[in-house]
Amino acid sequence: MTHVVFPLYDGFTALDVVGPYQMLAFTPGVTVSFVAPTPGQVTDECGSLSLAAVGFDDVPRPDIVVVPGGPGTALALAGDLPRWLAEVHQRTRWTTSVCSGSLLLGAAGLLQGLRATTHYRHVDKLPLFGAEPTHQRVVEELDARVITAAGVSSGIDMALRLVELISGRQVAEAVQLWTEYDPQPPFDSGSPEKASIEVNELAASYEAAALAAVTS
Amino acid sequence: MTHVVFPLYDGFTALDVVGPYQMLAFTPGVTVSFVAPTPGQVTDECGSLSLAAVGFDDVPRPDIVVVPGGPGTALALAGDLPRWLAEVHQRTRWTTSVCSGSLLLGAAGLLQGLRATTHYRHVDKLPLFGAEPTHQRVVEELDARVITAAGVSSGIDMALRLVELISGRQVAEAVQLWTEYDPQPPFDSGSPEKASIEVNELAASYEAAALAAVTS
Repeated sequence: MTHVVFPLYDGFTALDVVGPYQMLAFTPGVTVSFVAPTPGQVTDECGSLSLAAVGFDDVPRPDIVVVPGGPGTALALAGDLPRWLAEVHQRTRWTTSVCSGSLLLGAAGLLQGLRATTHYRHVDKLPLFGAEPTHQRVVEELDARVITAAGVSSGIDMALRLVELISGRQVAEAVQLWTEYDPQPPFDSGSPEKASIEVNELAASYEAAALAAVTS
Repeated sequence: MTHVVFPLYDGFTALDVVGPYQMLAFTPGVTVSFVAPTPGQVTDECGSLSLAAVGFDDVPRPDIVVVPGGPGTALALAGDLPRWLAEVHQRTRWTTSVCSGSLLLGAAGLLQGLRATTHYRHVDKLPLFGAEPTHQRVVEELDARVITAAGVSSGIDMALRLVELISGRQVAEAVQLWTEYDPQPPFDSGSPEKASIEVNELAASYEAAALAAVTS
C-alpha cells in the first residue's frame, strides 16, 4: 500500500489538491490522507470548500507527499508545515508540490541546488530557496526525490507521472482513460506567453484579490 | 452575483466537482454552494474526501447547477435529486452535468429530445432518457439551457465555457491563465479510441471496483 499525504493549510487552492488526489486515489493500492498541524476542517482560498484533515502525528511516515499551493502559502511559510516537510522528506519516496506549494518545499530546504517550477507568478521567488527556476510544467529531480509542478491544473499532469512511478505506465494510462483526461480547453490562454497582454493583466489582478481574501 | 450550486451525493467523483468549482469560484461575481437532500458531510467514491453541503431548501433558486457524476449515481437516481433538478431547472440560467451526472439530468426529464454526453462507459444509457448520445467532450443545448460534459476531467473544459457565458471571453481566458490550464498529459490515452485495448480493459475493470466500493 502506497500512502499519499496532502498537507493542507487555510487558503489552499482546491484544484491543486483534488486534481492529483483524483488520479492517485483512483490508483489501486494507493491510500490518501489529508493532514494539518491541527486536525479539523481546512478551508480553501475561496472560502466555500473545506476538507477534513487529520493531524501531522496521525500519519508519521507518508510514502508520497503532495504540497498544494494557494494564496495561503504566504502564511503557511511561517507556520509548522516547512519543518514537518523537512522531517518526513527523510523517508518519503517522493516529495512533490503543485503551484506555490513549491515555496513551502523551498522553505523546508528541499529545493537547494535543484531545478524547480511553481505558479508562473512566483517563479522569480525560487532562487530565494536556492532553486534554479524553470518554466517547465513538471520538473523531476528524481535523484533528490523531489518533483515540482507549475500552477494549479499542472498537478494533474504531475500526478499521472506519479502513478506511472508507483504502478507503471499501463495503470497510469488506465487512470487517464477512466478520468477521460483528453483536454480540450475552449481557449488557448493557459500560459503567460499564450495569453494576451489584457488577459495577463486581468489574471494578475486576481492575485491581489486572492491574497486579500485569505489574509483579511 | 451568480450563484452556482453543486448537488452532492455519496459516491460522487471529487474531480467532477472541484474541476468546475475551481474555474467558477475564481470568477469574480460568482458564489458557489454545495447542496444535498440532508445537510452535512458528503463522501466521495474513494471514501477519503468529504465536502460539507447545505440542504436543498437553503438554496431555493440557483442560477447555475452543475451535477457531478460518480459510481454513486446508481443510488442517487432513485433518491430525491432528480425531482429537485426538475424543480430548480425551471428557473436556472444553465443546468449542467459532468460524467455520469448526465444520467441524473436524464432522470429529471431534462434531456428529452436533446443531444448529450456523459462518461464514455455510460453513453449507451442516454437513450433511456430520450437523449441523443454523442461522443463530444462538451455538448451545449443552449435553447434548452442544458450543457453536458463527458467523463471526470471534461468538467474543467465545460466550466471555462460557463465562465465565458457568465462573464465573457476575456475573464474566462484570465481564469484559464491563472489556473495555468495549458494541459500537457504525459500520455495520450484520454479516450477509448486513443488508449490501447489492454488499457481499455484495465480501465473497465475499475468500474466494477468503484461500484462495489460505493454500494457495499
